[in-house]
Amino acid sequence: MITLYHHPLCPQSRFVRLLLGEYAITPELIEEKPYERRRDFLLLDPSGQTPVLVEPSGLVLSGPGPIAEYFDETRGLALGRGRLLPDDPASRAEVRRVSDWFCQKFFQEVTNWLVTEKVYKRFMPREQGGGGPDMELVRAARSNIRTHLRYIGYLASHRNWLAGDRLSHADLAAAAQLSCVDFLGDVPWDENETAKTWYARIKSRPAFRSLLADRLPGISPSPVYADLDF
Amino acid sequence: MITLYHHPLCPQSRFVRLLLGEYAITPELIEEKPYERRRDFLLLDPSGQTPVLVEPSGLVLSGPGPIAEYFDETRGLALGRGRLLPDDPASRAEVRRVSDWFCQKFFQEVTNWLVTEKVYKRFMPREQGGGGPDMELVRAARSNIRTHLRYIGYLASHRNWLAGDRLSHADLAAAAQLSCVDFLGDVPWDENETAKTWYARIKSRPAFRSLLADRLPGISPSPVYADLDF
Repeated sequence: MITLYHHPLCPQSRFVRLLLGEYAITPELIEEKPYERRRDFLLLDPSGQTPVLVEPSGLVLSGPGPIAEYFDETRGLALGRGRLLPDDPASRAEVRRVSDWFCQKFFQEVTNWLVTEKVYKRFMPREQGGGGPDMELVRAARSNIRTHLRYIGYLASHRNWLAGDRLSHADLAAAAQLSCVDFLGDVPWDENETAKTWYARIKSRPAFRSLLADRLPGISPSPVYADLDF
Repeated sequence: MITLYHHPLCPQSRFVRLLLGEYAITPELIEEKPYERRRDFLLLDPSGQTPVLVEPSGLVLSGPGPIAEYFDETRGLALGRGRLLPDDPASRAEVRRVSDWFCQKFFQEVTNWLVTEKVYKRFMPREQGGGGPDMELVRAARSNIRTHLRYIGYLASHRNWLAGDRLSHADLAAAAQLSCVDFLGDVPWDENETAKTWYARIKSRPAFRSLLADRLPGISPSPVYADLDF
């Protein structure tokens, strides 16, 4: 069985969970709190960041990009027309560009601030930086997401999916980030109908179900979080 | 001819310059100051970040990862035994993990702070955040680099190159980051002999020459920067 070290509100972990869902793989999920810097986890992967995936062979893979590429290389053919990376190099480059946009840029400008301030800091000891949220960062993230939502709307109005004709890593990467922010109730869905329609399509895929069932102690998801007709 | 929009001290641009050097490709270099957010540059790539590469066909590629993968897919075979991505998926995943370590983790914990504080802020107008360096961030970066140097030493003592037997994207990614920090004189080379020996090997490759000739107005590189026998 595949093991995935993840955190429920780590967007890069969610990307890998969506990916595994598309491959119809149910992993054993082990919840990791990266801020605890657990020794055995650091021995698995010295960066100390989720997600880390362990193959049944014992092979350890870490990071959303390397994991997604590895799955395409080892199991992509089996997805047939549903393969998550296109065939030609230029289209593949576009999928990777849009994936990086969400895994890196959206993460740094939106998700990381919201999840760190509103979730992680709540569970961290004060001497490690825990405590109440810095509302200036929360406000900056809430402002930044509006630009990203417009960009999603722009991409989705020019293409069938975010990086081309077919569902790809790019859609999973974007949906993973948005789903964390949506859990916290910070996506202004009313501002972009096209982005909302794209998200409704991906949210209704079977791969999404395990994410919608996520709960955290003491933090309720927003009312629309698990609603397919939000 | 290939065109590369870059900044001399943008480490991700340097990674692509090293990559092109290994393919024996001399691009037309166009210097871009990302903090100016030039309209024509944003039209090329909406992230507004260097590097952006334009193929002779007009195809636009952006980001170090997507560019490196694209070159491997379209021109990798021609490198024969010198190909910069290995053949088997597990080894490829390791190259990508180590590359991401440097392009993302090292960049965020070291290079970005040093280059922003010591270089970019000098050329930025005050209303955009320009001014003198925040020495607290400079000190944090100088402290963080010591851990990374030890990690390079660890990898280089267990393998021929950082991610395996052969030179790969991982070595170029690491060397690109280090070369920016070395330009600014902030690499404590004396602390790790193995890391220094690895860097000396890659620094003496022909692909490195154009980087060593880089100069910036008003900022002299450190005395050892262009010295192959540092």
